[in-house]
Amino acid sequence: MIETNISRVIIEQYVKRLTEHLNSDVVIVGAGPAGLAAGYYLAKAGTKTTIIEKKLSIGGGIWGGAAGYNVVTFEDKDILDEIGVTTKKQGRLYVADAIEFATALAYQAKKAGAEVFNLMEVEDIVLKKETVKGVVVNSSSVRAINLHVDPFCICAKFVVDATGHPAELVSMLKRRKPDLFPKELQEYFMNVEISEAGVVEKTSEIFPGLFVAGMAVCDVYNLPRMGPIFGGMLKSGKKVAELINEKL
Amino acid sequence: MIETNISRVIIEQYVKRLTEHLNSDVVIVGAGPAGLAAGYYLAKAGTKTTIIEKKLSIGGGIWGGAAGYNVVTFEDKDILDEIGVTTKKQGRLYVADAIEFATALAYQAKKAGAEVFNLMEVEDIVLKKETVKGVVVNSSSVRAINLHVDPFCICAKFVVDATGHPAELVSMLKRRKPDLFPKELQEYFMNVEISEAGVVEKTSEIFPGLFVAGMAVCDVYNLPRMGPIFGGMLKSGKKVAELINEKL
Amino acid sequence: MIETNISRVIIEQYVKRLTEHLNSDVVIVGAGPAGLAAGYYLAKAGTKTTIIEKKLSIGGGIWGGAAGYNVVTFEDKDILDEIGVTTKKQGRLYVADAIEFATALAYQAKKAGAEVFNLMEVEDIVLKKETVKGVVVNSSSVRAINLHVDPFCICAKFVVDATGHPAELVSMLKRRKPDLFPKELQEYFMNVEISEAGVVEKTSEIFPGLFVAGMAVCDVYNLPRMGPIFGGMLKSGKKVAELINEKL
Amino acid sequence: MIETNISRVIIEQYVKRLTEHLNSDVVIVGAGPAGLAAGYYLAKAGTKTTIIEKKLSIGGGIWGGAAGYNVVTFEDKDILDEIGVTTKKQGRLYVADAIEFATALAYQAKKAGAEVFNLMEVEDIVLKKETVKGVVVNSSSVRAINLHVDPFCICAKFVVDATGHPAELVSMLKRRKPDLFPKELQEYFMNVEISEAGVVEKTSEIFPGLFVAGMAVCDVYNLPRMGPIFGGMLKSGKKVAELINEKL
Amino acid sequence: MIETNISRVIIEQYVKRLTEHLNSDVVIVGAGPAGLAAGYYLAKAGTKTTIIEKKLSIGGGIWGGAAGYNVVTFEDKDILDEIGVTTKKQGRLYVADAIEFATALAYQAKKAGAEVFNLMEVEDIVLKKETVKGVVVNSSSVRAINLHVDPFCICAKFVVDATGHPAELVSMLKRRKPDLFPKELQEYFMNVEISEAGVVEKTSEIFPGLFVAGMAVCDVYNLPRMGPIFGGMLKSGKKVAELINEKL
Amino acid sequence: MIETNISRVIIEQYVKRLTEHLNSDVVIVGAGPAGLAAGYYLAKAGTKTTIIEKKLSIGGGIWGGAAGYNVVTFEDKDILDEIGVTTKKQGRLYVADAIEFATALAYQAKKAGAEVFNLMEVEDIVLKKETVKGVVVNSSSVRAINLHVDPFCICAKFVVDATGHPAELVSMLKRRKPDLFPKELQEYFMNVEISEAGVVEKTSEIFPGLFVAGMAVCDVYNLPRMGPIFGGMLKSGKKVAELINEKL
Amino acid sequence: MIETNISRVIIEQYVKRLTEHLNSDVVIVGAGPAGLAAGYYLAKAGTKTTIIEKKLSIGGGIWGGAAGYNVVTFEDKDILDEIGVTTKKQGRLYVADAIEFATALAYQAKKAGAEVFNLMEVEDIVLKKETVKGVVVNSSSVRAINLHVDPFCICAKFVVDATGHPAELVSMLKRRKPDLFPKELQEYFMNVEISEAGVVEKTSEIFPGLFVAGMAVCDVYNLPRMGPIFGGMLKSGKKVAELINEKL
Amino acid sequence: MIETNISRVIIEQYVKRLTEHLNSDVVIVGAGPAGLAAGYYLAKAGTKTTIIEKKLSIGGGIWGGAAGYNVVTFEDKDILDEIGVTTKKQGRLYVADAIEFATALAYQAKKAGAEVFNLMEVEDIVLKKETVKGVVVNSSSVRAINLHVDPFCICAKFVVDATGHPAELVSMLKRRKPDLFPKELQEYFMNVEISEAGVVEKTSEIFPGLFVAGMAVCDVYNLPRMGPIFGGMLKSGKKVAELINEKL
Repeated sequence: MIETNISRVIIEQYVKRLTEHLNSDVVIVGAGPAGLAAGYYLAKAGTKTTIIEKKLSIGGGIWGGAAGYNVVTFEDKDILDEIGVTTKKQGRLYVADAIEFATALAYQAKKAGAEVFNLMEVEDIVLKKETVKGVVVNSSSVRAINLHVDPFCICAKFVVDATGHPAELVSMLKRRKPDLFPKELQEYFMNVEISEAGVVEKTSEIFPGLFVAGMAVCDVYNLPRMGPIFGGMLKSGKKVAELINEKL
Repeated sequence: MIETNISRVIIEQYVKRLTEHLNSDVVIVGAGPAGLAAGYYLAKAGTKTTIIEKKLSIGGGIWGGAAGYNVVTFEDKDILDEIGVTTKKQGRLYVADAIEFATALAYQAKKAGAEVFNLMEVEDIVLKKETVKGVVVNSSSVRAINLHVDPFCICAKFVVDATGHPAELVSMLKRRKPDLFPKELQEYFMNVEISEAGVVEKTSEIFPGLFVAGMAVCDVYNLPRMGPIFGGMLKSGKKVAELINEKL
Repeated sequence: MIETNISRVIIEQYVKRLTEHLNSDVVIVGAGPAGLAAGYYLAKAGTKTTIIEKKLSIGGGIWGGAAGYNVVTFEDKDILDEIGVTTKKQGRLYVADAIEFATALAYQAKKAGAEVFNLMEVEDIVLKKETVKGVVVNSSSVRAINLHVDPFCICAKFVVDATGHPAELVSMLKRRKPDLFPKELQEYFMNVEISEAGVVEKTSEIFPGLFVAGMAVCDVYNLPRMGPIFGGMLKSGKKVAELINEKL
Repeated sequence: MIETNISRVIIEQYVKRLTEHLNSDVVIVGAGPAGLAAGYYLAKAGTKTTIIEKKLSIGGGIWGGAAGYNVVTFEDKDILDEIGVTTKKQGRLYVADAIEFATALAYQAKKAGAEVFNLMEVEDIVLKKETVKGVVVNSSSVRAINLHVDPFCICAKFVVDATGHPAELVSMLKRRKPDLFPKELQEYFMNVEISEAGVVEKTSEIFPGLFVAGMAVCDVYNLPRMGPIFGGMLKSGKKVAELINEKL
Repeated sequence: MIETNISRVIIEQYVKRLTEHLNSDVVIVGAGPAGLAAGYYLAKAGTKTTIIEKKLSIGGGIWGGAAGYNVVTFEDKDILDEIGVTTKKQGRLYVADAIEFATALAYQAKKAGAEVFNLMEVEDIVLKKETVKGVVVNSSSVRAINLHVDPFCICAKFVVDATGHPAELVSMLKRRKPDLFPKELQEYFMNVEISEAGVVEKTSEIFPGLFVAGMAVCDVYNLPRMGPIFGGMLKSGKKVAELINEKL
Repeated sequence: MIETNISRVIIEQYVKRLTEHLNSDVVIVGAGPAGLAAGYYLAKAGTKTTIIEKKLSIGGGIWGGAAGYNVVTFEDKDILDEIGVTTKKQGRLYVADAIEFATALAYQAKKAGAEVFNLMEVEDIVLKKETVKGVVVNSSSVRAINLHVDPFCICAKFVVDATGHPAELVSMLKRRKPDLFPKELQEYFMNVEISEAGVVEKTSEIFPGLFVAGMAVCDVYNLPRMGPIFGGMLKSGKKVAELINEKL
Repeated sequence: MIETNISRVIIEQYVKRLTEHLNSDVVIVGAGPAGLAAGYYLAKAGTKTTIIEKKLSIGGGIWGGAAGYNVVTFEDKDILDEIGVTTKKQGRLYVADAIEFATALAYQAKKAGAEVFNLMEVEDIVLKKETVKGVVVNSSSVRAINLHVDPFCICAKFVVDATGHPAELVSMLKRRKPDLFPKELQEYFMNVEISEAGVVEKTSEIFPGLFVAGMAVCDVYNLPRMGPIFGGMLKSGKKVAELINEKL
Repeated sequence: MIETNISRVIIEQYVKRLTEHLNSDVVIVGAGPAGLAAGYYLAKAGTKTTIIEKKLSIGGGIWGGAAGYNVVTFEDKDILDEIGVTTKKQGRLYVADAIEFATALAYQAKKAGAEVFNLMEVEDIVLKKETVKGVVVNSSSVRAINLHVDPFCICAKFVVDATGHPAELVSMLKRRKPDLFPKELQEYFMNVEISEAGVVEKTSEIFPGLFVAGMAVCDVYNLPRMGPIFGGMLKSGKKVAELINEKL
């Protein structure tokens, strides 16, 4: 019957994609602006890239602009031009529509070849010989209702923590390896005016195999949260892609 | 200071867009597949189109494919080609990635000129001289926490109910105008194999000024819910755009 | 890596089983005592049987006995002997341990060849030419957190509503086909002493393609709810299996 | 249409007020008794004053008097006379109606020129060159439903933490600057009889650019919580206004 | 001790006010714009007036303006001038600050002599000889946590249902006296442009002893909900006061 | 060990009491004022009486007096004298402490020999030959967390619905036997002044084997809810005991 | 009218009792077994005693016996005889009905003259010259729904923390006075067999003006939680009464 | 009547089993894979074994396989053969159906003589002379709704913590005996490839009388969480049984 044909095609196609990506070059956790930008630049360079997102939709904090005023601003527009987002100059700033920005970025990452799995949540990291080798994942809906179900693993040469403010992967590592994280990380403090630059500067491989990008950087280095700094997010994502592509 | 400049630009830009669209040609309620397709084809034809979405992200039921297997299938691929979605033939069906489909559709609607306001919820319809003339809207986050706050109005020549299975606007009208809705609507029943065709066939102006499209059609005519029939959603959205463009 | 090998084997094995059962002889909805007994007797006769359960664990109302006193009673013990449950005579009754009964029944159904998919929920029925032809299913965890995700279909020659007191499938049908259900169903009333017999007597094909068994029978015919009558549940499950096996 | 005219006027008027206050002389966080009193005395002196309140209504803990007995008491009545609240002498105390007190105070603050934005919540402070320069705000309803949306900034020469017992702004600063807050703050302890005096005495600029007033003072200095001491709240608000007005 | 003196004065003062108002001329249920305006005009005329409010703060839907843009508009400004609210002309409309409007209205009602009891909820009406003679009230916080606690009574010559959209008192009466409410009430429908006029026109004594005012009128007569029509609310409140004052 | 000795004694003693009462003369559902009074007078006359209460503590609506003012009033004091409650004359009324009243009543019922099982909830009634013969009960905590667990039965010659306003047992019967309940029950309406008398007058055997007492009477006959009328509750409980004792 | 007479009498009577007890000899916080026993023995000795209970009903953990088996055991029965509880000898233990025990104890405490205020919660302690002088209380229902309402004070010569396992008052003191509580308190550990004796032994004045009794003792001294040791609770309550009566 | 006969038989049978097991050789807390395997091997050796499970159903994390793909894998199949689970070789791994595995394991444990009490939760441990001697248990449904009810005790020569990731019993002990647990436990870290071996290796008597098995081992020794390693769980359960059987 047509109904079961549709069902079969969907299930088989999904599982094919999923099993093919159980071993990837890079796993990016979090499909917000930094994660999607990283995915775009990695996939564009031919890197086998898997993006994991715990929510149903992707885009993270982009959709609501600032406080629900769904507009986003940037200090320059090179990346936006590249991914096809219309901008308008307002004084020193470029403005764009938040929804156009979110969808264009995800669409281009996907078109470039990054594979996105939504409704999937990271529970732990795979760590071998003091190197991060992958992530332990589960169904986020199963976890949301507190069912006791075991996870599975997705392995990769490199893992990117683009989980935003909680910096979830770094936290998992820190709980286990507190000595690896110097105390002064917690005390770093900067002028909010240079937040955007700070996010990019601190985007790096924080532990063998584990990179941190986007708002997760702010969390790790205690950079203050300010308004929508999506320019910094994009550049951080691009930088992490460049750092990884060099190492591959 | 830069911080307040960013804030000012965002707020002013948003409000400019919002106040410009308080009077539109068409207001589409619901940014799922049918609403976005309608928005795309309306805007493409030069119609001033406003899309209202109660959630933070757009895309409705697209993101999860079927039961979270995030793949979508179609019986033909003309519209997908038009909006730039990669498809693959599997037997009689075309498959595509759900995330690519969701973002491409929203992106193209936005690019064509449709304006999307998310986090906004319809509370009532504006009805004058037995004709729907607009919608009464409120902040969906304010409503979600049960605060007592009054709404405002967005008016339009035509309103499209693309709210999916609840068919919210039709329901609001029905409560007030029970006699206008013939009983047999409730009893219409069809073979699920032709659901997709049924959705398109029944896409229409159900009341002066009010069109119904997408899954809301299924709700109104009691068509059975089956698996992901996004082809029908796209065609229903396209049809509603054509019907409205003819009338303008 | 071993981790991804384990993941791959599990996912592929599951999907193989699932896609093989998208077309079954019988789909039983609900893995409580009646559903499992039906599954056991159907599979034992070589019928291709799929059991769908919305919870994570199977067994329905068996585990808690009466009010949490996890003991179950029966008026005779033939089926219990067959599935390997130890019983003890107490006056006219046979008592057994609720946990032993739940696990033995599910284990035997599985061993006989019935395939069980848990965490899966029925949203609608597939109805063609006035005959039930399958069920529309979704992830129950996705539904539990109110995510908007489309379902898929599992088709079968016969569907069994063993969903217990809500009689979910019959309700879905009734909403659409109110005229098919004679009013007096609602008024049927019986002495609780013969509840057990009544459940079995009324186990039947209630609509072309749709059988009802177990507590769902009580719900449909308004039989009173009394204490744990698992004997009636088992016999109802066995009867539905016999009725279906005859028709195949 | 009249409906959209009303909508336009409201939205434009609000946004004009909001954008004009993105740079203020003083931002007061919390529209309880101390925050409103501070706003009243600041605005009366011609200071450009913005009050931010996370709830829908203002007044904080005034409305319920003590344990819902909506009466308030004061040791003297100078400020009450000034803002037009009727008092009655009872022994050494003056009593007033809680609702009259709440509305009179807010009304006078507003009349004096203080601008109040409700449904707005502070997420972080703006800190430059070791000085507090403003606050990072968001929609409190958006935050209440855990949506991931970025904030915006309101800057000011001085910020007043009048958030009541949680002392939210001081806490944000403390997490980042633990060394600045001497340990003995935590151990300060006083006789409850002089709580009211203590609140006023400790009202001060606790960090460059950040003042603390009202119950937030109790929280910072660990003053015991006692019954309704609205006299102390008013005087603390008045004192903070005087301290700031001197510095401007 | 001073602490217990404060406690004693507050409790005794509250109870004095409460017991004095157990028999009032008028009980108004709901301290929103219509209820407060009614209270203001009733008390100003010397009528013994009790206002009951279930929330902690008063003002109902005023505080949030439209969708949180905390600005309100009016078609004329006579009442606003009378209660001391600053307005600004914008085209045909007068705009005012929502917070100033809410606090000025409540403050004036209180000053005029209306007594407000907040945190108090109506459970039932007192009905004698087919006339409403008072209300049965309870602590709204006790009810909010579903505690089983009995109510008490506040009696009055007239009761005003100013409970807003739910029209709670009218509903209680309707459940008991369905025949008294003609069916066509449900079908009344009007052009939204004249909503404001409709609210005032239909403000009346709907049942011996029971008046309905404000948004409750919309609910009873099924007038459509539109944006903030606080002008109509004020006039409805004023009209109900005039109707009652005439009868006293 | 002493620990297990204590455990054993408690469990065995409880189960002895429970199994001895599985067949009672009377089962009273609800341990509020009417249920406890009925239990007291039944047990005092030597009737084997079982009281079932779904909450952990007994007393129903007594504890909070009116709106939390924990005082109760009565028009006469005969029963109160009998059960040892101190009263004080205030005008025409007798006042007593709510906590003293609740505990004295329960204590005397218990002393007289009524057996109380708390944390137990009625799910259904046992009905044989058109006569109520008992109740189907379950653990109320198991039900509160929506676990699927079967109930057990407690049988009796007579059952008393003393469940208060929901009149739970009558409702269960009504759903099954709608024709037995004349429509005019719903329309009965009385002056609140005679509520107390009405409750007692309508206390009766509403269906063979099923008596209704206390607030459940108000619910069945639609008597208005007024303040604390515990005198009526006591008399209703006493009357139901007398009616039953006569029939035994 | 009779309705308002009843209301007036109840409110006035309650408030009279409350204001008379704003200054007491002893305030006991918690109306569980230890608090009620303390109240009984204090009041019996003529001490002016106020018991504060946050729940609606009193009795604390008595009602459910052990795990819901509502039976309680004791090693001796002197106090039970004194308060009129029927016991039965089972081996070395005396068993009693939990509901009889709860109601008898509260009834006798009340009869002896202890005043109980339920629905009242302690927020803080009143501390003067390093001595506990009373408690800061609020409506527990107001607090349960997180309303921002100030508390009031009840003062006393001595305060008893009988709040059970959380030992709420001691905790409030500890947060403020950490140095007063020796660390080894936390490490004290005893054989569960002598728990009952330990509770009594450690019942004492833990800080000037503050006594601790009942399960709160276990919390403070980290005694293990075991099954129902109501004998220890009663003796602890009696001991605290004796210690206080000696000091008065 | 038959209904009460059934009720009586069930209650008496349950209580007989429960009181017989208040003193056991071994109490296993947690009926997941390790707990059930331990129970199977202990009971098979004739040891009197009690398994306590807080949920309604047993099986712990088995039912959902990995992320809901209900398939389980093992590195060898000896134990599976022994308990009658069908396996299939896939590369180096054996796969089995999760539901078959869960039910077979529980069924065999029960058949071997282990007694399972579900809906029962451990609150504390019984500790005498520095040795764990049993557990303090309560109804898990009573606890789930935060009722204040005391627990009872089940004593045993040995207790097994098989509570999975929280390692609940070890945590209770650690809070009381922090010095007994060397700090380096927290820092132990291993290669995930040998997780399975690690679980078995660290299965041991961690404190006199207290054994730890299964995922609780991972929690105590901070072994990383990886995908479903049910082979390790079974072996850990078997090992704990062997260790205990040797000591008996």
